[in-house]
Amino acid sequence: MLTFKLSERAVNTPSSPIRRLAPLAAKAKKEGVKVYHLNIGQPDIESPQTFFEGIKDFQSKIVAYENSRGNPFLCDAWAKHYKDILSIDISPENILITQGASEALIFIFMICCDPGDEIVIFDPTYANYLGFAAISGVVLKPVETSLKNNFALPPPEIIEQSISGKTKAILLCNPNNPTGTVYSSDELQSLVEICNKYHLFLIVDETYRELVYDAKKPLSIFNVAYNNDKVMVIDSLSKRFSLCGARIGSLITSNAEILKAALNLAQARLSVSSIEQHAAAYMLNNLESTYVDSMRAEFCRRRNVLFDCLNRIPDITVHKPEGAFYCIVKLPVLNAEDFCTYMLREFRDDNETLFLAPAGGFYMKEERGIDKVRIAYVLSEENLRRAILILEKGLRSYLSKI
Amino acid sequence: MLTFKLSERAVNTPSSPIRRLAPLAAKAKKEGVKVYHLNIGQPDIESPQTFFEGIKDFQSKIVAYENSRGNPFLCDAWAKHYKDILSIDISPENILITQGASEALIFIFMICCDPGDEIVIFDPTYANYLGFAAISGVVLKPVETSLKNNFALPPPEIIEQSISGKTKAILLCNPNNPTGTVYSSDELQSLVEICNKYHLFLIVDETYRELVYDAKKPLSIFNVAYNNDKVMVIDSLSKRFSLCGARIGSLITSNAEILKAALNLAQARLSVSSIEQHAAAYMLNNLESTYVDSMRAEFCRRRNVLFDCLNRIPDITVHKPEGAFYCIVKLPVLNAEDFCTYMLREFRDDNETLFLAPAGGFYMKEERGIDKVRIAYVLSEENLRRAILILEKGLRSYLSKI
Repeated sequence: MLTFKLSERAVNTPSSPIRRLAPLAAKAKKEGVKVYHLNIGQPDIESPQTFFEGIKDFQSKIVAYENSRGNPFLCDAWAKHYKDILSIDISPENILITQGASEALIFIFMICCDPGDEIVIFDPTYANYLGFAAISGVVLKPVETSLKNNFALPPPEIIEQSISGKTKAILLCNPNNPTGTVYSSDELQSLVEICNKYHLFLIVDETYRELVYDAKKPLSIFNVAYNNDKVMVIDSLSKRFSLCGARIGSLITSNAEILKAALNLAQARLSVSSIEQHAAAYMLNNLESTYVDSMRAEFCRRRNVLFDCLNRIPDITVHKPEGAFYCIVKLPVLNAEDFCTYMLREFRDDNETLFLAPAGGFYMKEERGIDKVRIAYVLSEENLRRAILILEKGLRSYLSKI
Repeated sequence: MLTFKLSERAVNTPSSPIRRLAPLAAKAKKEGVKVYHLNIGQPDIESPQTFFEGIKDFQSKIVAYENSRGNPFLCDAWAKHYKDILSIDISPENILITQGASEALIFIFMICCDPGDEIVIFDPTYANYLGFAAISGVVLKPVETSLKNNFALPPPEIIEQSISGKTKAILLCNPNNPTGTVYSSDELQSLVEICNKYHLFLIVDETYRELVYDAKKPLSIFNVAYNNDKVMVIDSLSKRFSLCGARIGSLITSNAEILKAALNLAQARLSVSSIEQHAAAYMLNNLESTYVDSMRAEFCRRRNVLFDCLNRIPDITVHKPEGAFYCIVKLPVLNAEDFCTYMLREFRDDNETLFLAPAGGFYMKEERGIDKVRIAYVLSEENLRRAILILEKGLRSYLSKI
């Protein structure tokens, strides 16, 4: 007899499409196979030396609770960082430090919505937004964007069709995960206008803000609309400083009520890790001036290599991403998850294989992504070339078998 | 015109009774006043040297994501720790690492309950449980315990009266925050029986497990019922290793379905801080053998000092706590929050004052705690004596004014 039953929301929380094939990769590695990871946004670039100096600079003999709203020195440093890179004056009081961007998003879903309320997102979308929605009982309403159109935003009248009486917010990831698309000032402005018109919150996840290529400059929604009580930025040190495992993010808004509600949630979980916050403040205050620029240049080179290599594979459809370090690639297969599983489980080239994220999990209607994968180009040029060669060979082998 | 409205749950999430007077304390400090903190469970005891060695031992040049379920070495070390201190064989696979006990509790509330479902708790209760309930839409059903009875559990038939068709779990904090009461093997056994009878989960928050005094030995619910798929332990390194700011907790259960659902939630937030997990594993593997014992002895001495000093103040009611480092004290005032505010805002003795947590926030019916405070005896004997003297003088001054 079954003596327990889990909640509906537990049953409905999806497993991560980025991570759910991880056991197969672990098994391959145990067998001595080298696995190239293009599945996850974990850059192979060294974290700033100043972050490690900041870790050493933590002098307290007690690892005590930090303030619930964050280490004040980190809030100050982050505000200064905004001034330096975006010429925006943010008050440190408008910044709440969170356990990565993930926690900031969970807080915002909880604060803007009651269970059953809706948030408009752009589809494909960052898969973990589905997890945050399941946790918070929020219904995500997708506005479709498509590969053939470089995942551009549709015109306002199309976006407005997804707004109902239950809609509380629009959520945009810019630059975009999983597509690598970078949205323009005009596109951002049109979202602000929609949100003003319908009294919606505008949540912009700017985790990848500095990672934009070609002639593009980092652009925050705050460059378009700062003192707007409906606008909030989700930020993170994870990607632009290769600090994914530090789990330092933030929620930034000029809306005092949201900050107060977020602080109540933050108090319930007490605080973010003290040592990591100290190190992050130290790093921002002592930044190697070229760190982010050289990271941007490196990812731009990788993007070019990836795009060139992919374009040489027959029957693949790919767009040229303009930012972040992801792209969505359409493969000549019926089921990309099946192909990704095949690569990890069976295909070996010189005892090496490849870990890709099936794109289905990034689409609200999984069938829209069924023939696609998301590639995170987080490896060095040399490894990237090798990985795409393995992809080409793996595809040929897979297609010859089915 | 108000152009936005926050969610009901945001409005209903209580501010922390431990932290909400913090701005008054900050103001007093700015004015040069020394404030003794008895409001918060932040020990003044140095964290283990091996933890800091573990921080230095983190050699990777990239602060990368850790596994969503936790650093495997930390899971192994934690399982070994259970074997060493409690003689219990826990499989490392049954441990999920969380961002402090707080995150483990939020996960469990989400997994056991859908919004509107109920969890039975013992009142007074750890105030943040109210926050987790607000976040997750869970209704807490209090079973009252009282100061005059040393906050002992009532007989099963009384507990059973709080169980309805919507009840999913019973949650116990043992040793107890905020009361310092330690529950016996028989009391735990009776809860297991109730949970078996009504098909409920039994969640035991064992954050303070090793902090028990006099002849008592640390006792886990796993010592009473381990291979029971309804039982789970919430654990934390925060208190017994004075690592509150490291934010390393865990969820432990032999129930594979719960672990799988928790892993899905854990994947949505990616991972817990990598450096802190590495350091925690290093510490547990290289533990100074006397660390926990000497911490226990120190808190036992402080408990004795506190109890003696409080007993000398007229018209105070106090029980002798048996574990953790808290006690609930009934003061001869009508409104303890007003008194605590008075202490921070006005009362000074030789330019020093005292920060106590009003107990109202620890009671589901605030009026039950209105004349009480929670004292965390986290200061040295000398500071504790001084703090209680300030309490005595402050009370006298307050009572003469009203």
